[in-house]
Amino acid sequence: MITENTNVDDIISGSEFLRGLVKKLRAYDSYGTWAKFKDSYLLKPFIKTKEEKKKIDIYSDVDKQTLGLVRLFYEAVALVVEEKSGFFVTVAIDITHEGFGKVLIYSGNIILLERTLKDVQKFGFEGIEDIAKEGEKLINNALKNVEKFKQLLN
Amino acid sequence: MITENTNVDDIISGSEFLRGLVKKLRAYDSYGTWAKFKDSYLLKPFIKTKEEKKKIDIYSDVDKQTLGLVRLFYEAVALVVEEKSGFFVTVAIDITHEGFGKVLIYSGNIILLERTLKDVQKFGFEGIEDIAKEGEKLINNALKNVEKFKQLLN
Repeated sequence: MITENTNVDDIISGSEFLRGLVKKLRAYDSYGTWAKFKDSYLLKPFIKTKEEKKKIDIYSDVDKQTLGLVRLFYEAVALVVEEKSGFFVTVAIDITHEGFGKVLIYSGNIILLERTLKDVQKFGFEGIEDIAKEGEKLINNALKNVEKFKQLLN
Repeated sequence: MITENTNVDDIISGSEFLRGLVKKLRAYDSYGTWAKFKDSYLLKPFIKTKEEKKKIDIYSDVDKQTLGLVRLFYEAVALVVEEKSGFFVTVAIDITHEGFGKVLIYSGNIILLERTLKDVQKFGFEGIEDIAKEGEKLINNALKNVEKFKQLLN
């Protein structure tokens, strides 16, 4: 659970991925309506406790907000991979209304990360550290492929 | 315009891509309700004349049927690429409700084909030969990448 204390702010400023995610979120705020909100507040929609997840019906269609959060999450992964590798990185997300699908993060002809998603209706993390941990794991996996396929990227 | 003559059947049986597309279409027909329909009849939804396209509002959301046709079309491309190359091939389609997006056809870490789509609301072809021509062009482009990246596929 996020509480409004300096600890959470420290976690955010200490995580390259969370900084990327906040950057992505604020980029969608064209009119600056979120300018007064703290970063930790903006990340709240990414938090879902076990109890909240249990209440979500996976036989219902995925709602647009959840799909938007999934997209933001993987766009933030791509952003950090792009910043760290220097290569142009793109995201493709293919999710059915039933909450099943895949995410690709790629550069040129090379797929840097492929993930199969299921029960997207329940997309969310236990706490802010878990968002950071998962994002950084994916970034590292993608960067390993950057190294592996370096001579094919441009 | 498709007319119900042998000529159309000849075009279909002579085109590897159209045969693949019909195979994909019939694969979705689990209960065999289309068994009595000719292949040319099943391909009709892919035909849109210039006049029909003009009438479609690109500011409206893309409907599910059109998205389904786009998916079938690219799945058929992937199917033929898979059959001809012997590599396992997958499709990812990322299209916004506004009708803009991209299609990726890939194998392992290698993207064999990437296409940017726009005005998906108007997806369709002038005639059956145009479906074949477009499909075969895409298959050839993908197969060129199979050759180029062969040592990285498995």
